[in-house]
Amino acid sequence: MCRWLVYAGTPVLLDTILYQPTHSLIEQSRNAKLGVETTNGDGFGIGWYTDESDTPALLRDVGPAWNNRNLRELADHIRSPLFFAHIRASTGSAVQQSNCHPFRHGRWMFMHNGAIDGFPLIRRDLALLVDPALYADLEGTTDSEVMFYLTVTLGLERDPPGAVARMAGVVERVGRRHGVDFPLQMTVALTDGERVWAFRYSSEHASRSLFYSSRVDDLRRLHPDVAFLRDISAETRLIVSEPLDDLPGAWNEVPESSYRVIAADEESLHPFAPAPAGDG
Amino acid sequence: MCRWLVYAGTPVLLDTILYQPTHSLIEQSRNAKLGVETTNGDGFGIGWYTDESDTPALLRDVGPAWNNRNLRELADHIRSPLFFAHIRASTGSAVQQSNCHPFRHGRWMFMHNGAIDGFPLIRRDLALLVDPALYADLEGTTDSEVMFYLTVTLGLERDPPGAVARMAGVVERVGRRHGVDFPLQMTVALTDGERVWAFRYSSEHASRSLFYSSRVDDLRRLHPDVAFLRDISAETRLIVSEPLDDLPGAWNEVPESSYRVIAADEESLHPFAPAPAGDG
Amino acid sequence: MCRWLVYAGTPVLLDTILYQPTHSLIEQSRNAKLGVETTNGDGFGIGWYTDESDTPALLRDVGPAWNNRNLRELADHIRSPLFFAHIRASTGSAVQQSNCHPFRHGRWMFMHNGAIDGFPLIRRDLALLVDPALYADLEGTTDSEVMFYLTVTLGLERDPPGAVARMAGVVERVGRRHGVDFPLQMTVALTDGERVWAFRYSSEHASRSLFYSSRVDDLRRLHPDVAFLRDISAETRLIVSEPLDDLPGAWNEVPESSYRVIAADEESLHPFAPAPAGDG
Amino acid sequence: MCRWLVYAGTPVLLDTILYQPTHSLIEQSRNAKLGVETTNGDGFGIGWYTDESDTPALLRDVGPAWNNRNLRELADHIRSPLFFAHIRASTGSAVQQSNCHPFRHGRWMFMHNGAIDGFPLIRRDLALLVDPALYADLEGTTDSEVMFYLTVTLGLERDPPGAVARMAGVVERVGRRHGVDFPLQMTVALTDGERVWAFRYSSEHASRSLFYSSRVDDLRRLHPDVAFLRDISAETRLIVSEPLDDLPGAWNEVPESSYRVIAADEESLHPFAPAPAGDG
Repeated sequence: MCRWLVYAGTPVLLDTILYQPTHSLIEQSRNAKLGVETTNGDGFGIGWYTDESDTPALLRDVGPAWNNRNLRELADHIRSPLFFAHIRASTGSAVQQSNCHPFRHGRWMFMHNGAIDGFPLIRRDLALLVDPALYADLEGTTDSEVMFYLTVTLGLERDPPGAVARMAGVVERVGRRHGVDFPLQMTVALTDGERVWAFRYSSEHASRSLFYSSRVDDLRRLHPDVAFLRDISAETRLIVSEPLDDLPGAWNEVPESSYRVIAADEESLHPFAPAPAGDG
Repeated sequence: MCRWLVYAGTPVLLDTILYQPTHSLIEQSRNAKLGVETTNGDGFGIGWYTDESDTPALLRDVGPAWNNRNLRELADHIRSPLFFAHIRASTGSAVQQSNCHPFRHGRWMFMHNGAIDGFPLIRRDLALLVDPALYADLEGTTDSEVMFYLTVTLGLERDPPGAVARMAGVVERVGRRHGVDFPLQMTVALTDGERVWAFRYSSEHASRSLFYSSRVDDLRRLHPDVAFLRDISAETRLIVSEPLDDLPGAWNEVPESSYRVIAADEESLHPFAPAPAGDG
Repeated sequence: MCRWLVYAGTPVLLDTILYQPTHSLIEQSRNAKLGVETTNGDGFGIGWYTDESDTPALLRDVGPAWNNRNLRELADHIRSPLFFAHIRASTGSAVQQSNCHPFRHGRWMFMHNGAIDGFPLIRRDLALLVDPALYADLEGTTDSEVMFYLTVTLGLERDPPGAVARMAGVVERVGRRHGVDFPLQMTVALTDGERVWAFRYSSEHASRSLFYSSRVDDLRRLHPDVAFLRDISAETRLIVSEPLDDLPGAWNEVPESSYRVIAADEESLHPFAPAPAGDG
Repeated sequence: MCRWLVYAGTPVLLDTILYQPTHSLIEQSRNAKLGVETTNGDGFGIGWYTDESDTPALLRDVGPAWNNRNLRELADHIRSPLFFAHIRASTGSAVQQSNCHPFRHGRWMFMHNGAIDGFPLIRRDLALLVDPALYADLEGTTDSEVMFYLTVTLGLERDPPGAVARMAGVVERVGRRHGVDFPLQMTVALTDGERVWAFRYSSEHASRSLFYSSRVDDLRRLHPDVAFLRDISAETRLIVSEPLDDLPGAWNEVPESSYRVIAADEESLHPFAPAPAGDG
């Protein structure tokens, strides 16, 4: 189990989102409420976009987020309009930087909370379905990284949500072939630096928690006294594994088997289903 | 807050004590029950005696104990008649190896759970009371390390419990001089490789939890089916921040303001009080 | 021994200075030419100023710079008009983040290459001369950190070069009282985010290497084909432990017992001598 | 490039072999003489056998060996009749514990110095030839780990040198199919806890250095004053990437394209050639 957060909108100091909220992601690294485990201390990562490159920057480390001084430093000095943050709870695979999210491919970032059931059993079969030209980019041992490279393989560039659907279809097909009833459990965030897609799905339709923030103008009306809401644009959005505070009306559950899109000119919800075999 | 464990008795594989119990110290690193905090993930350490040296061996690292593979390896391969284990929850000081317990001086080991209230305020005054010849041995920034070197300074070699009492007296005196009402909160374990002393004390007489294991022959009568109890000598003892399991009759609270001594020919309980000024 | 680098001038991507030069600081971490040791692999640090705060940001870690991925990431994404970088070769003190340079106090940064001879012997006496209100800020065990806090104590804010002179005087006085002939060996860089001071001094007048870059307009005339020189302002300057490349005319030795000042409206060289006792 | 060391013989404190020699492996981590690179600071590992288990114990970490305190501690306290030690110089793959040698499978240990040329190109093809039941055990990204699991796949248990020959044959065949002229460069050490095999081979017959120690009785005659030689049994042997000292007559080159066997009742040299296709 892990916890993650996506921010998109008015450029903001990372600190504002990562550390300041009552139930911030940093706080969740020790005291998650809605996750399978309370502690998410097996590494962390942040990824953010800057003016210097199309490729996002990553800071990832193997210790807990709550005591990491480099993360604390960057949070006080980096302002970004779009960033991902992830705290990891390993379900057994090695605690190493290459197993920390977000994963990156060119300008794309990907992060995941969940698991492929029986992954050790089917890891090889899934890895073989990754584009051979990408195989050497696999650096870690997580199901999440394989899911990402399968997504890249299955058309990420031309059709991001379709590629995720095909990835999910492949995982379910291969899993079931190995006798796993409910192969996939995922909340996934994906971005190309402009748009964000956030998916909530599990084979048994009992997916891990996922929330998106309400429209800023609605929140301003509800909470005229919250200064932060005045400082951000109407389009600013968060998607999080669990709410960052208990501000009434601020957080909404992403429905089971759906995905949400955030873009400059669009914010929308869509049904999600794994693509059937052959659709890849 | 931290959690710790002392084992003394029949040489045992570290795994048996560190990992196997239901509520083992490793489990406590994520899910402590009686501590101030649930998570003790800011470093860990073990210290054990071998035939190679009077000086105990230390393994200390800055990550959490629960995911450390080197600790897992050593636990499977090292058998020792006397070892200390500690998991750390920093209250702000740096997460670095030199702040991990146990601390060592020659053949002595020391570990601590608790805090000196207002330590940043009085750190300097306390450090000045450490024997100048030992000052350069201070490698970290914890109150615990200063407490240890004060204890060494105040007569550890010739009178261990007296030295701890004088250290506690010094801490209280200096703390109160700086306006701190309840300067000291401590459970401390100390050993020279033969005897173990375990102290429970706090200035406000509301000390952190500390337990010692019952006599092995009593436990055997109570639990004739527990194989482990048949494999250890009658003299084997544990002292722990919190019970390792819920075996009825196995764990007894060390009384407030007292210390316990474990030695080959002695197991005893004594009252503890800080030594007054000038007694050092 | 260590190696360091100061950059001040046209905002530049850290990569340009840290990784691109033939004999970059990263290259020096494995293959220093002019240092006491070839390898500087006991930790590293960078400090840089951003628009978000007067306080500089720090990234410091305990492994070698050459294989650190987070440093590599930041170098590709951070552009700064003023930054410090340091690679460490421990002479015995612990390899821990709190022993990595640069050190910081408010908006000030400080880094050091060199050593206080006999430091374990005089560490206590020096620490006692640090302003008691700053004592609790000492987090590591290096001579460098004590030198910095002595400098802060002795008037850094109102007279930076004078404070360094008084610090050097104190170190020499205390060292000699303990029978050390040549107590101080230092090249020190200091900044408040606007001006930079770089000192080269040693008690025996055989100081570690230190170089400053030539005036950019002179270099442009000498090397009209070097693109980098066209991209930076005439005021841009570097100060380095050893030259970053072998560009003819680019590097000049900072003379023994002197310091250099870099500021928007000033670039100057001054003699340096420790201030006598009582001058602090 | 890396450096490694095998010890087999009279149980010895690790310190005696790892730290005491003039040109010890720890010294080689900063100043290797015969390797491709001077610095081997990208992680290290030791593996040793104890009475507690058939499975050897491993201590592996990602920092340099020269400043690792836990290694220093174990070296002072662990005595073993058979151990492996390895210092790593990454040629690009991640610096993570799972890329540190030795690798282990049951009671077997394996370590490697060298490289598969064009590994990123052929990593996938090689990984596919690993027994599917072992694929999930691949935790890192090194050529070395894949070489080990190929060796396990190709008959390690029943015919260790044959399995290594088949592994080498597979690597060369796959490499050449991808247009690599000289696919394999290796010195490999292998043990089951009783016997040791050490291989020196490269496709272009220009293999990395490898040395074995002379017979102890011969050395005693040559150097009657060297105390260490009196303390070890006649059967004690070392195999090393480079000599640990310059004791005349002590070190002998393992010939190109050969392997050496050390066992209680046998010490022998054999020619080595990759097994042709189909022999696996």
